[in-house]
Amino acid sequence: MPAVPTDKEFMNELIQRLYPICRSITGDGVRQTLTILGEHLPLERREVPSGTEVFDWEVPLEWNIRDAYVKDPSGRRVIDFKESNLSVVGYSVPFEGSMSLEELRKRIHTLPDRPDWIPYRTSYYKQDWGFCTTQRILDSLQDGVYEVRVDSSLEPGHLTYGELEIPGENDEEILISCHVCHPSLANDNLSSISVATRLAMELSARKNRYRYRFLFIPVTIGSVTWLALNKDRAQRVGLGLVLTCLGDSGAMHYKRSRRGDTATDRIMSYVLQRGSGDSVFDFSPYGYDERQFCSPGFDMPMGCLSRSTYGSFPEYHTSADNPDFLSPDSLLDSLDVLRRFVLVAEGNRRYRNMKPYGEPRLGKYGLYGSVGGVRTGKFRELAYLWVLNGSDGGRDLLDIATRSGIPFEEILEAAVALESAGLLVACE
Amino acid sequence: MPAVPTDKEFMNELIQRLYPICRSITGDGVRQTLTILGEHLPLERREVPSGTEVFDWEVPLEWNIRDAYVKDPSGRRVIDFKESNLSVVGYSVPFEGSMSLEELRKRIHTLPDRPDWIPYRTSYYKQDWGFCTTQRILDSLQDGVYEVRVDSSLEPGHLTYGELEIPGENDEEILISCHVCHPSLANDNLSSISVATRLAMELSARKNRYRYRFLFIPVTIGSVTWLALNKDRAQRVGLGLVLTCLGDSGAMHYKRSRRGDTATDRIMSYVLQRGSGDSVFDFSPYGYDERQFCSPGFDMPMGCLSRSTYGSFPEYHTSADNPDFLSPDSLLDSLDVLRRFVLVAEGNRRYRNMKPYGEPRLGKYGLYGSVGGVRTGKFRELAYLWVLNGSDGGRDLLDIATRSGIPFEEILEAAVALESAGLLVACE
Amino acid sequence: MPAVPTDKEFMNELIQRLYPICRSITGDGVRQTLTILGEHLPLERREVPSGTEVFDWEVPLEWNIRDAYVKDPSGRRVIDFKESNLSVVGYSVPFEGSMSLEELRKRIHTLPDRPDWIPYRTSYYKQDWGFCTTQRILDSLQDGVYEVRVDSSLEPGHLTYGELEIPGENDEEILISCHVCHPSLANDNLSSISVATRLAMELSARKNRYRYRFLFIPVTIGSVTWLALNKDRAQRVGLGLVLTCLGDSGAMHYKRSRRGDTATDRIMSYVLQRGSGDSVFDFSPYGYDERQFCSPGFDMPMGCLSRSTYGSFPEYHTSADNPDFLSPDSLLDSLDVLRRFVLVAEGNRRYRNMKPYGEPRLGKYGLYGSVGGVRTGKFRELAYLWVLNGSDGGRDLLDIATRSGIPFEEILEAAVALESAGLLVACE
Repeated sequence: MPAVPTDKEFMNELIQRLYPICRSITGDGVRQTLTILGEHLPLERREVPSGTEVFDWEVPLEWNIRDAYVKDPSGRRVIDFKESNLSVVGYSVPFEGSMSLEELRKRIHTLPDRPDWIPYRTSYYKQDWGFCTTQRILDSLQDGVYEVRVDSSLEPGHLTYGELEIPGENDEEILISCHVCHPSLANDNLSSISVATRLAMELSARKNRYRYRFLFIPVTIGSVTWLALNKDRAQRVGLGLVLTCLGDSGAMHYKRSRRGDTATDRIMSYVLQRGSGDSVFDFSPYGYDERQFCSPGFDMPMGCLSRSTYGSFPEYHTSADNPDFLSPDSLLDSLDVLRRFVLVAEGNRRYRNMKPYGEPRLGKYGLYGSVGGVRTGKFRELAYLWVLNGSDGGRDLLDIATRSGIPFEEILEAAVALESAGLLVACE
Repeated sequence: MPAVPTDKEFMNELIQRLYPICRSITGDGVRQTLTILGEHLPLERREVPSGTEVFDWEVPLEWNIRDAYVKDPSGRRVIDFKESNLSVVGYSVPFEGSMSLEELRKRIHTLPDRPDWIPYRTSYYKQDWGFCTTQRILDSLQDGVYEVRVDSSLEPGHLTYGELEIPGENDEEILISCHVCHPSLANDNLSSISVATRLAMELSARKNRYRYRFLFIPVTIGSVTWLALNKDRAQRVGLGLVLTCLGDSGAMHYKRSRRGDTATDRIMSYVLQRGSGDSVFDFSPYGYDERQFCSPGFDMPMGCLSRSTYGSFPEYHTSADNPDFLSPDSLLDSLDVLRRFVLVAEGNRRYRNMKPYGEPRLGKYGLYGSVGGVRTGKFRELAYLWVLNGSDGGRDLLDIATRSGIPFEEILEAAVALESAGLLVACE
Repeated sequence: MPAVPTDKEFMNELIQRLYPICRSITGDGVRQTLTILGEHLPLERREVPSGTEVFDWEVPLEWNIRDAYVKDPSGRRVIDFKESNLSVVGYSVPFEGSMSLEELRKRIHTLPDRPDWIPYRTSYYKQDWGFCTTQRILDSLQDGVYEVRVDSSLEPGHLTYGELEIPGENDEEILISCHVCHPSLANDNLSSISVATRLAMELSARKNRYRYRFLFIPVTIGSVTWLALNKDRAQRVGLGLVLTCLGDSGAMHYKRSRRGDTATDRIMSYVLQRGSGDSVFDFSPYGYDERQFCSPGFDMPMGCLSRSTYGSFPEYHTSADNPDFLSPDSLLDSLDVLRRFVLVAEGNRRYRNMKPYGEPRLGKYGLYGSVGGVRTGKFRELAYLWVLNGSDGGRDLLDIATRSGIPFEEILEAAVALESAGLLVACE
């Protein structure tokens, strides 16, 4: 019987398996990815036909690629899709032909400042083809006639995404979304896919108050498609997060929802008060799928959680964003932040004190175990007093934790004990 | 004919007389205290029978004590209630017997870090007995058989408190409460009892806009009892203060009411802007009777005023909190802070400007005595202009004083002059 | 054909022409001033009879002065109205007589600390007469009999002011007011008269969304009179400014309206975020005509714009406030601040995004000219995204500019382009 992997082992293995796959906003790479995730989660695979109108957009043609290369005059593959799937511009149309180096150069993207890294480029909405390689390789090419081939297809097919619903007591949902449309890029976004998968496995194995929905979708067109197909369901989302870049060694960053004061914002601001350089900042309509979820017609309570933010690290959208760039400790820390987010969301409620006139006499209920003011085990008289005083049906436990400075977990335990003693009743 | 005592003399003499009395949450010590206060104030004495249900509590048995001691093997009283009433744990049940030093030690409380101080301890809700003494005395005791006696009674009787109502023009009340349940402790709370008594004497001698109510009550069970017997009356309290520890040499501290923005909070925050280290801080459900007054069912506009706060000075709840610990200047300053609180509360109103279109021509009303901008005596044109501009029926004089930076007293004088001139009408 | 003057030339020439005129709160000096302004603007001249009741005030007698002097014993004019119209106390009643130097001294105002400057003094509401001169001249006078003459008249007449209405698409008005009641004082207020005139000329030459109203009025009694005659019109003022002292070399100061959060306040706070020492401060009922416009019965959305504030520069209300005291660069900068105020006011609107579900696909509308994130000319994708995301019918463009950090002008251009593309509809 195999050993149960640790969180770190699980996430690392998943990233290693997913890394070689060539994903894009459509195509078999996404399907292979969802198949692997499906080994761990009862994921529903959605297939939406090309041409389907989704708000102001339409589902594009499906793109698949088998091979692509540039051969030098001696017939050697100097740029080779098989070596790195970043080598071809995403959504490159099929092409086969020969051309001079001068002509070819116009089709080749490099990073002159980072001569050993291959950039990641796409051309989703303009039919075109191109290659990406290192500046060092480009510089080494000699004049002559080059043979070029892009063995791809761009045809009516489907947009594919994965969706997992984990039932809860409530009809209100927590939506967790991460993009699965990038080829061999590790932090962006295999890190989030692995963290989300691990979190979803945990949540599936227990009873939850909220219903959880996990989306593994292509960026932009994927979230627009999901929203178009789930306009009513979007209204039931009470909290939500877009997850990106959760594996680098930077501090955590939380970008608030458009409204800026949603339950997600309140909880994530609380969770990230760890004195470790974490930061919380305002919404902007630029970044990942929070752009779509927070469009004014939806204005969903969804923020974006990442470590280093969008485009702020040099490895971003290059071949240097590979598994070696990830920190196993950071991946685990990101998972732990999400676990605490879930813990607070699940536990946070408004209660009503059933003995609101003066303080109840805690000793009568077995809740006053010692001389006043001294901690008894993990409970504290002070937590009882704060919860009783705050529970007027208007403030929730997170309010009380924030005002009192007592950790949410202790406030929650106090509330549970007071509820058992009949001193509190939950309002919702 | 005796000289009229100064404030300092009055408060000092009162503290000296009250200091020796052994008070507790019930019993004759409270009655003796109220009798002495009754020499200065027409105090009503309330007696509530043991066993009376008051919300979640019930009035306890009445405790009285005549004597208590520990005699060493030689018959000498080594711990003696007659020397300090802190020597016996409050609410100790009657006991008489002999025991070894080893056995006795379990019953004796000391302060090892302060070897010359006696701690103050109680056991209200667990029937028990014990002694308190200095570490130095405890260390000096030799092995042998000790004779112990607690000559107390714990029997059905009453809980006693004092209440003073000073009539006012309005039905709205200002409630001032201080606890009278501590034995020989000076700052906690003879300081507040003496300041409150002096303030009550002043208020009784003049006409007031508010009705004032002073409570001299045992902590916790006293306020719970008063609230249970005065549930409707509690609704008429518009402002209120719990007074504690008003005699030490620390700066003033005001703890806001639970709501945090009541009239009491606004006025006390204003009064304590003296640039002297005074501070104002948020409510917490821990401390003195504000816990009961601000329980969510009442949520009264009551904060707590003290100099050094609850438990923050080493002398707290020890024999070192004796009259020598008090500063006469601090007692007087505390009284002055309360006088200004009363002045602002009494004077603060919303007015409506009867000439709201443009400025009225002050000269027509004899209010423009000189070249603009120059003070004439204690009045200022500027105060008139601020009061006229601010008096839209919504802002009150305290708002105007705060915005203008002009002292409340000058704003009030301006308002009174403008009202006399027919330019203002009070809204309430 | 004469060259068109630059802004600086125009304002300087106007100030030079207006400077010698002896203005007061009534009289021919104001009429002469309005006649000169009337060469550039189709100004309506209002004449309100003495004795007219205006709220708590009445229009005063009209004051005119032809000559005034003090002759020394040798017959030499030592103080001479013809040399400086500050030499006579404003509103001095007619007088002719002889007196000793000692008697005369009581009637003479000087500035002992500034021995070469003549102070500016008035006595509007107490019938009196007096002179102002330099300390140096006063000190040089020898004992003897002095001949004094004030050749003035104070008789029933009119209060005169100028009013210019520039039509706009809307019924909502922007009111710009400046006082014209000071004699030879340049910063206070020929600076503002010249800036306002230039601005009014520009606004008259183009189509505007708002209706603009410019007032050239005597301070206090002028604004009270206008308000009394235009009580309904005052309700239509949506934004407004009192202009004073716009020509000295100090930084800009904006004093908020009484409400503190009006459209005027928001826009002026935005415009003055120039990192140049400009400052924005709270309303006080002291200063210029904002006192009347912001009296509680009107509470108009009007602030006061100046460079150095009321009384804060030594030249204030002295002969040193002459045209040499003005900085042409400052005058131009003041005009530019007002131009930007107008630009933001005219352009600021709330829009509604017509494609509020997800982002619209900008490329379909020709609005997506290049790779994401790169500026194309002066437009930016980012401005489109901010405007689309923010345009929910509640936020206006100024909100969006502030949140995004993108200059208002770029946000406005983006909104105009999005409106042309049918993606936005204006809410008002």
